[in-house]
Formats: sequence, C-alpha cells, structure tokens
Amino acid sequence: MTKIGVVDTTFSRIDMASIAIEVIERNLPAARIVRYTVPGIKDIPVAARNLILEEGCDAVITLGWVGAKQVDKYSYIAMSIGLIMLQILTGRHVIDVTVHEDEAGSEEELRRIAVDRVRKHAMNLVRLVKEGRSALTRYAGRGLRQGYPDIGPL
Amino acid sequence: MTKIGVVDTTFSRIDMASIAIEVIERNLPAARIVRYTVPGIKDIPVAARNLILEEGCDAVITLGWVGAKQVDKYSYIAMSIGLIMLQILTGRHVIDVTVHEDEAGSEEELRRIAVDRVRKHAMNLVRLVKEGRSALTRYAGRGLRQGYPDIGPL
Amino acid sequence: MTKIGVVDTTFSRIDMASIAIEVIERNLPAARIVRYTVPGIKDIPVAARNLILEEGCDAVITLGWVGAKQVDKYSYIAMSIGLIMLQILTGRHVIDVTVHEDEAGSEEELRRIAVDRVRKHAMNLVRLVKEGRSALTRYAGRGLRQGYPDIGPL
Amino acid sequence: MTKIGVVDTTFSRIDMASIAIEVIERNLPAARIVRYTVPGIKDIPVAARNLILEEGCDAVITLGWVGAKQVDKYSYIAMSIGLIMLQILTGRHVIDVTVHEDEAGSEEELRRIAVDRVRKHAMNLVRLVKEGRSALTRYAGRGLRQGYPDIGPL
Amino acid sequence: MTKIGVVDTTFSRIDMASIAIEVIERNLPAARIVRYTVPGIKDIPVAARNLILEEGCDAVITLGWVGAKQVDKYSYIAMSIGLIMLQILTGRHVIDVTVHEDEAGSEEELRRIAVDRVRKHAMNLVRLVKEGRSALTRYAGRGLRQGYPDIGPL
Repeated sequence: MTKIGVVDTTFSRIDMASIAIEVIERNLPAARIVRYTVPGIKDIPVAARNLILEEGCDAVITLGWVGAKQVDKYSYIAMSIGLIMLQILTGRHVIDVTVHEDEAGSEEELRRIAVDRVRKHAMNLVRLVKEGRSALTRYAGRGLRQGYPDIGPL
Repeated sequence: MTKIGVVDTTFSRIDMASIAIEVIERNLPAARIVRYTVPGIKDIPVAARNLILEEGCDAVITLGWVGAKQVDKYSYIAMSIGLIMLQILTGRHVIDVTVHEDEAGSEEELRRIAVDRVRKHAMNLVRLVKEGRSALTRYAGRGLRQGYPDIGPL
Repeated sequence: MTKIGVVDTTFSRIDMASIAIEVIERNLPAARIVRYTVPGIKDIPVAARNLILEEGCDAVITLGWVGAKQVDKYSYIAMSIGLIMLQILTGRHVIDVTVHEDEAGSEEELRRIAVDRVRKHAMNLVRLVKEGRSALTRYAGRGLRQGYPDIGPL
Repeated sequence: MTKIGVVDTTFSRIDMASIAIEVIERNLPAARIVRYTVPGIKDIPVAARNLILEEGCDAVITLGWVGAKQVDKYSYIAMSIGLIMLQILTGRHVIDVTVHEDEAGSEEELRRIAVDRVRKHAMNLVRLVKEGRSALTRYAGRGLRQGYPDIGPL
Repeated sequence: MTKIGVVDTTFSRIDMASIAIEVIERNLPAARIVRYTVPGIKDIPVAARNLILEEGCDAVITLGWVGAKQVDKYSYIAMSIGLIMLQILTGRHVIDVTVHEDEAGSEEELRRIAVDRVRKHAMNLVRLVKEGRSALTRYAGRGLRQGYPDIGPL
C-alpha cells in the first residue's frame, strides 16, 4: 500500500496539511496518509526522516512557513540542505513547500499564495508517486509556478 | 525510562537550562534529565550527539545564544546544519532554541524573549516525547511563536 | 552500455532537456538516455541520485532554472551542496547546468544563454564520459564559458 | 593516556598554538600534545580528523585566522560545517578558536583578542576533557566571552 | 610510490595545472602526477574524490577560478563544503587553490596573483606529503599569504 507522509508546523499561519491531504486523498484514494506536526522548519527534516525510515512512507510533502528575518532565511538554508541530504540518503521524494512570511503585501495574498502552492505541489507529489520519473515530463520547461500563476515558457 | 538531554552554553547570558529543566521536570516527572554544558553554539552539535548516542537520550533540547555580528550568524548556519544532520542520522528530535543578542531593544526584552522561548520549546519537546508525531497536530497552522506572543492563524 | 541521466524541471521556462538530449544523442549515439522531470531545483538531487543508483546511469546532466529572489539563491546553494555530496558519494559526474532568471536583460537573451549553456555543458559531459579525466585537458585554463562567449586565457 | 590535538595555520599572524599548548601543559600535565600545522582554515578539518582518527586524540583545539574579505567568511562557513560534521561523526570535541582579521581596530587589539581567546578556549578544552559534560555547568548562562571581557549574565 | 592528484578547470583563464605540476615535479621528483580537468569549480570535488579513491592519490591540489557574481560565490561555498567533507571522509589533504576573478584591478595583477598562489600552495602540498603534520610548523603564525606577499606576524 502506498504511504504518503505529510509534515506540517505550528509556526505556520495556515493549516497547510489539510489542504495537502485533501489533494492527496482525492487523487490517491488508496494511499494511507501519515501526518507529523512539528514546531518549526528546523524540525521538519527529522520528521520527514522518521516518516520515511520508521513509518515506511514512499514519499513526503513538507509544509514550512518561514519568518521574515534574515536568521529565518538562514534556518531555511539549513532545512533545505537537510531535506536534500535526506533524499540523497533514502532515494525518496520529499517535496518541500515553503511559504515566506514576507513574500506578499497582504495577509489575503499570503493565504492565496500558500493555498495555491500547497495544492500544486501536492499534485506534483501525487504524479511522481503514481507515474514516476516521466510523470512531469509533459510539463517540462513550461514555466510552472506554485503560489503564483504559471509564467509559461519563453 | 525516558531520558531527556539538555545542552546549554557559557556564552548565554541567561541560565536557559534551568528554565528548560523546570518545564521538563514538571511535565515529564518520570524522565531522567542529562545536562551538558559547552562554551558556545558551535560546540552544541557534538554535545547533542553524545547525549543521544552515548547517554541514550530519547530527545534533546539545545539552548543557544547567538552574537550580533555577521560571523555569529554564519556560525548559526553551521550549527543548524549540524543539528539537522544529527537528527537525520539518529531519528531523534533535537529542539533547537536560539536567542539572538540583537533581536531585542533592551536587556529586559531580551530576557523576556529568552524565557518565553525556552519554556514553550521545552513544552514542545515534552509533547513530542509523550505523544509522538500527532502531539502538536491540534496546534498545526495556528501561528504559534516562541519568544513572542502567538501571531495566530491567518 | 553507457547510460546518461537527464534531469529537468517544470519550473524552467525552456525545454532544456531536449537540447541536452540532442547533443548527447548526436555525440554518444550508442548511449541510452534516461530522463527524469521534477518540479524545481530542490528536487533535482534526489532525481540525479535515483538515476545513478537505481537506473545505473554513468553520468547525469541536471538542468535547473533559478528564480530571481534571494531565497531562490539560497535554494541554489542547497541544491549545489546536495549535488556535490552525491558526486562524492558515488564518484559519478553530475554536470549541473543552472540558468538564473535574473542574469539577462531580456527574454531573448535569457533564451540564448540557456541554449548555449545547455549545449556546451552537454558536450562537456559527453567528453568526460567518452575520454575520462584527460578529455578536457586540452581546454584547461582557456577561459571557456557556458551561456556566454568564451572569455579566453589571460 | 590523554592525547590532545592542536591544529594551527601558517596564515595566522600569531603563533596561537604555543599559547594553547602552554595552557594545556600547565593544566593537563600528563597529556600528550600532538600539533598539526596547515596552510589555512580550509585545511583545518582534515587535520583535526587525522588527529582524532589516526593519532587517537581525545579532543582537539583548532586555531584559525580568517581574512577580512567576504570570500574568507564563506570559507569560514565551510570550515565550521566541516568541524561540526567531524564532531558528529566522532563524538570528540573540536574547540574551534577563530580570529577574524577585521574584528579589531589595531594590530595591538587584534593580538590581545587572539591571546585571550586562545587561552580561554584552551581552558574550556581542558575542563571538558578532565570533567566531561558537567565541567562547564557552573559557568552556564554567565555570559562568558573569549577574546573580550566576559559580558556577564543579564 | 607517491601519487599526487591535480584538478584544474576549463573555466580558469590560466593554465594553473602546469604551474602546479612544475613545482611538484621539481620538489617531489619520484611522485607520479595524475591530472583531471573538469569544466568548473562545482565539478572539482568529484574529480578530487576519484583521484583519491580510484586513482589512489595520496594528496590532491585543486585549482579553481571563481566568477565575480554573487551566485559564483555561492558555488564557491558549495565546492568548499564538498572538498572539506571529502577530506573528512578520506583523511587525505586536498589543497584548494582558488582565484576570484574580481580580486584584482587588472588582468596583469590577476595573473600575478594566480601564479603566486598556485606555486606557494603546490609547495605547501609537497611539504605536507613529504614531512606530514609538522612540515609547516616552522611557518606557523608567520602570516604567510598565497597570491600576495606574506603579511608577516603581528
């Protein structure tokens, strides 16, 4: 049975996991979803690791919310390196969805970005799990964006 | 028996470990607490490693104090990457509490931030140790903050 | 049989993989090419890893497109560290072609840079695979550039 | 027998190792000291590694001198990550003493900083080796500084 | 028989390897030199890895040339972390010679820097290979510089 891990945080200002779970359940109805909630982005890699190595998840989606300060961005670098090393060690996809608190001018816009980004990346995960390395090839080079409208190819 | 590691530093201007230990003892009275004091933040990862691999701790809380210079921030990046790699290698949570000397306008405010951040993160650790991956799910996406009042959901 | 991996993204605004594949097919006609498409640059290392360790590729070319924001550059650092660690772990070349959305003044120029960079780096990969460590020695110190005209030796 | 490693560089403008060795010999008279000199900070991690894994050192003190340019600071990040990973892999303390060429207004002040920092950190190492994880607990949260006067607790 | 690896790039604007090889051949006449040319700095770590693990080199000198853009500096960080991790994994010295395209006001000066830096670091490598950890101790703290005149001790 396919198992999908979902990591979310209490730092986030939106319940990103529920959005991701809805997309996964609709598109991978036979999969079992395992959710893991941690305080903030620096706790995400160990949660993703445990979902893969202890819960046996085939893939994981992580839902991070990054503060506006420069030190938050440094934490983002550390988390990103960790998630990439985890993927190299395990061979499992960990789709990393990150919303930056300072990337929008209003709370409304920030919410819109977050919802769109989670939905599209959850769908990316579903496709990679269902069809593997060729699943996204039809969209290659198409300038897809998550959080914003697709910018399209040059 | 549950064993909780606590790493603190002589660089810190507050005895952060005593605050963390008080929260842990009150909420995990059966746990054994093992404290490890190091000079500064770059020494924290090896202490956390030894608490996990040599002392057998189930989880660790680290209490760092970061200077105001840019090179201190670079040290923070290195420490963060190290702690994340350690968690990936061991599967144990290392809750990283960090106070930045330049994040407050007064010493009084800095103390208030430090105390609040340690207490809340010690409680996060307690919950993760007691109830595992679902312990914090009820707070997911609630905009919790450590060191500051919760900002709340969007 | 030689197997070459090609990793591309849906974030890219150009179908970089087709350009790379054309060069590889023309110059390594007996090789089998395995393509792996992922959403964005942070997903590239695990794809390259799977092409090497699971598909048995002898070498990989990765085709990334990096956004203009500072956080995109931080993602670039994380991806680069990951690809380098992967190469250290496996001993296989992963030629990393990266186009930065902000490195050109016009879309036309950006396209020209991308095409040139992919072609030249695909040729680098072909040479390394065919002739090994001495393949590029005749060009050593010649100020070769990918994406721009060669600047030449001092 | 306790063995202590000392890594220093030819880049440094002060013979930092002699200062460290003096402190170690006075406070750990039975220890054997093994010195390893390298060109610059990027060579320090492999020297520390060899002192631990090949010479059998119980702990190491590294004595780096960092230039004033931004790229020197980037080298500092890389060295710091390396030393932290080495400690995670081996469980041995590597106390990292670093002097930044641009942290003082005069050569006299820079010398004073370097001497003070080396002495205090050598003493930190001695204490950790002699008494282990509790050795520094009496100083925890006391705002100790190396290179400058202690700032003291809040 | 001693084997020394030399890694150079086609990106460099000077044939740095020939300068290094000349120094090594003159000072280590019995050594076998193995040269590996790659496109740019991000390809250097895997070449150094292969020279150590597959060619059996006892030590490696890498000769990188870094562009002037900020993203080139980020690539430099990634390369540096990779080379340091490689040294930690293997225990072999990888002397990293890097010239930054923006560190000189004229091409003439840049050439002078590059030649001086390669020569001095090749000599550092020779000394470390011939005499080991004490080879450079007579120069410790002497403010040696590569690419510039020695600044001398404080």
